[in-house]
Amino acid sequence: MFDKVLIANRGEIALRVVRACRELGIRSVVVYSTADAASAAVRAADEAVHIGPPPAKASYLHVPNVIEAALKHGVDAIHPGYGFLSEDVDFAEVCSDNDLVFIGPDPEVMRLAGDKVEMRARMITAGLPVLPGSVGAVATVGEAEEIAADIGYPVVVKASAGGGGRGITRARDRAELQRAFTESTTIARALFGAAEVYVESFVDRARHIEVQIMADRHEVVHVAERDCSLQRRRQKLVEETPSALLTPAQREQVTEYAVRGARSIGYLGAGTMEFLVRPDGRATFMELNGRIQVEHPVTEMATGIDLVREQLRIASGERLSFRQDQVVPRGAAIECRINAEDPAACFRPTPGLITSLRPAGGPFVRVDSGVEQGDTIAPYYDSLLAKLIVWAPDRDAAISRMTRALDEFEVEGPGVRTTIPLARRLINTPEFRAGEHTTDFVDAFLARAAEGGTP
Amino acid sequence: MFDKVLIANRGEIALRVVRACRELGIRSVVVYSTADAASAAVRAADEAVHIGPPPAKASYLHVPNVIEAALKHGVDAIHPGYGFLSEDVDFAEVCSDNDLVFIGPDPEVMRLAGDKVEMRARMITAGLPVLPGSVGAVATVGEAEEIAADIGYPVVVKASAGGGGRGITRARDRAELQRAFTESTTIARALFGAAEVYVESFVDRARHIEVQIMADRHEVVHVAERDCSLQRRRQKLVEETPSALLTPAQREQVTEYAVRGARSIGYLGAGTMEFLVRPDGRATFMELNGRIQVEHPVTEMATGIDLVREQLRIASGERLSFRQDQVVPRGAAIECRINAEDPAACFRPTPGLITSLRPAGGPFVRVDSGVEQGDTIAPYYDSLLAKLIVWAPDRDAAISRMTRALDEFEVEGPGVRTTIPLARRLINTPEFRAGEHTTDFVDAFLARAAEGGTP
Repeated sequence: MFDKVLIANRGEIALRVVRACRELGIRSVVVYSTADAASAAVRAADEAVHIGPPPAKASYLHVPNVIEAALKHGVDAIHPGYGFLSEDVDFAEVCSDNDLVFIGPDPEVMRLAGDKVEMRARMITAGLPVLPGSVGAVATVGEAEEIAADIGYPVVVKASAGGGGRGITRARDRAELQRAFTESTTIARALFGAAEVYVESFVDRARHIEVQIMADRHEVVHVAERDCSLQRRRQKLVEETPSALLTPAQREQVTEYAVRGARSIGYLGAGTMEFLVRPDGRATFMELNGRIQVEHPVTEMATGIDLVREQLRIASGERLSFRQDQVVPRGAAIECRINAEDPAACFRPTPGLITSLRPAGGPFVRVDSGVEQGDTIAPYYDSLLAKLIVWAPDRDAAISRMTRALDEFEVEGPGVRTTIPLARRLINTPEFRAGEHTTDFVDAFLARAAEGGTP
Repeated sequence: MFDKVLIANRGEIALRVVRACRELGIRSVVVYSTADAASAAVRAADEAVHIGPPPAKASYLHVPNVIEAALKHGVDAIHPGYGFLSEDVDFAEVCSDNDLVFIGPDPEVMRLAGDKVEMRARMITAGLPVLPGSVGAVATVGEAEEIAADIGYPVVVKASAGGGGRGITRARDRAELQRAFTESTTIARALFGAAEVYVESFVDRARHIEVQIMADRHEVVHVAERDCSLQRRRQKLVEETPSALLTPAQREQVTEYAVRGARSIGYLGAGTMEFLVRPDGRATFMELNGRIQVEHPVTEMATGIDLVREQLRIASGERLSFRQDQVVPRGAAIECRINAEDPAACFRPTPGLITSLRPAGGPFVRVDSGVEQGDTIAPYYDSLLAKLIVWAPDRDAAISRMTRALDEFEVEGPGVRTTIPLARRLINTPEFRAGEHTTDFVDAFLARAAEGGTP
């Protein structure tokens, strides 16, 4: 096992990795920007290194500073968390060049996961169902129109290098397709530095269901599925396991797809195979996320498996500590992302001082947060304030427990708003209670609320 | 189900019951003394009633005030928590006289549980092994000497109405027995208002193993065992499940004893059958605690069963929500009691202002606490500041996790000391790590530490 690991991240996930390291007897080194100097992660780590001013490009994304900190502090490995450098192939290669273990999949798999067109082709080869669409990248609007005419509208135009739900545009007809093509291409170039896009069928009333994969050098196992259909503009708000939609046979199928797909590309470490699932339970492959996910705690609460601990084991060359037949999910787990955003003002981030913070607690409630009372939410990073996760023997009891926990959770500060009231309303809608919500539910809910008043 | 429940308690257990009520849609009313006016439980409850000045006799133990609050606020039932009125038969009967459901066993069972001599006799009848000793109460020293001569020294003299490890005195020979008899009789009269004592064999190198019982009007089930052998002068410090001592066959046996014993007396609700277990795994019945225990969270974490929720269901006339074959404990759970006491000064309570409080957090860590930063620990009540509970797939991992969590737990205030450093040392002793500690381990450890320095 490693002696010392550097954590190239901030906030709740940095603290999460520090805790996993400590329980394994690994010393932890956390890097931080000036904005995070007094953070809980910095205080919890064995060592902390200042790597730059607040803007991420000058600190958490600044590879030379991160590598310098790692070398200076004599670490064996770097855990990138999620976001920032976690899916950066170049960074992974620089780690390797400096004899530092990058805790994630091998670079060629990272590259593949980042190229949706190529990944789609590889999954077709592995026998996974994908949506009808272009075989490869689509270079011109004319080409896109031909494909759309062939597979039928509606379609979506997606950035090949995209991620996090960005660079995806829907088109219901030929006129919209021209606009969608331009929009996705522009976003793709601006956000990902590569204009390449492709075209796929659009599925109405779909569910976002993803399968947690863990793989060591010997085997690939799945750790059940998560249903992340409660999204606002493709940004996940609430995640749960198990999915209320899937029958046991459908669950078996989607997890088998995930394992087969990950195995076919030699996957290593923690990863997530994302699927789009129709109301009848049929799944098509969407994309692979080659890192730990924000929503990993629901999987942990339902299975008892510590996914970050397993990441550290695998990266150090150890085997997974469990076999596939030891993955026995129990009950129901739900996560609500508590963001410092104002739902009444188009989810504008509300940075500022947190004068009072009382997280929820009690039985079967977990709070992953890197923020404490007296901290200031900096405007430089994402607006995730805390993840609130609950478990119960069944989904109904889990929703009641989450409602209680949301009621208990207090965040106060001048100008600070959170998604707590919205989450409480969403999980108590008849649609969510019945488990019938699809990925367009939140947007429709907000549109209705906007007509009737404040969401 | 009840509409409204009054909680006749304070601190973490009051908050625990408030949370269970809320998740069941029950309105909660918390009573409080002047010292607890700003407590977390009071803030969390739907309603709160001031019932008197800080001393417990004038507030939490003052039956007329509690009943008046219950009637005035129109509650259906009273949850007594643990301690205070939870084992008071007269109180239970006053509740009944006022058409209030007392959440606990029936009065005749409460009376029996409070009479150790009678309970012992009833368990013998039910076929449970008990320690050799007096058949009934022992009236004189002479009678005690006869029994001791018969069963052999060492023996213990126990208060018949005792509880919480008080009123128990050990005697290694006839001279010590005279002193022990006087001491236990005096304590029994002073603490419990009844001088009656009895005599039992003393077992060296014993384990304290208790079985969680849950019973509705139809069936009695067990919810596995807890090992509470890490005690200081019979006060539990660390509790865990499963016991590292028991073989599967021994576990099966002790849980069967517990169910049989509880069934034989018509037990109802949550209760704990306590056993003294020899190093070879043979168990003898000690006593029945007819209430929820401080250490119930370890059972909850290992089984996923919400014991307080079940208490509320049963008292309202519903069935248990699970069957015996659905009790499937998983992994290992440990609780450390974090007391505001100074181990370096004979565990003197250290009341005072908590200027800084950072509880531990993260995956598989639970903190049950009624105290928050800025609160003052009042000198009127017990010194329990928080219960820290962790779960992991196995006992070794649970100890590592608990060590990490104890390291993380910060409590600061002028003059305030806690049992955190001691707990950290105890769970990392070779004896505890190996699971070979007995009930005398902590006292011996402290004696050794006292010779070498501060524990």
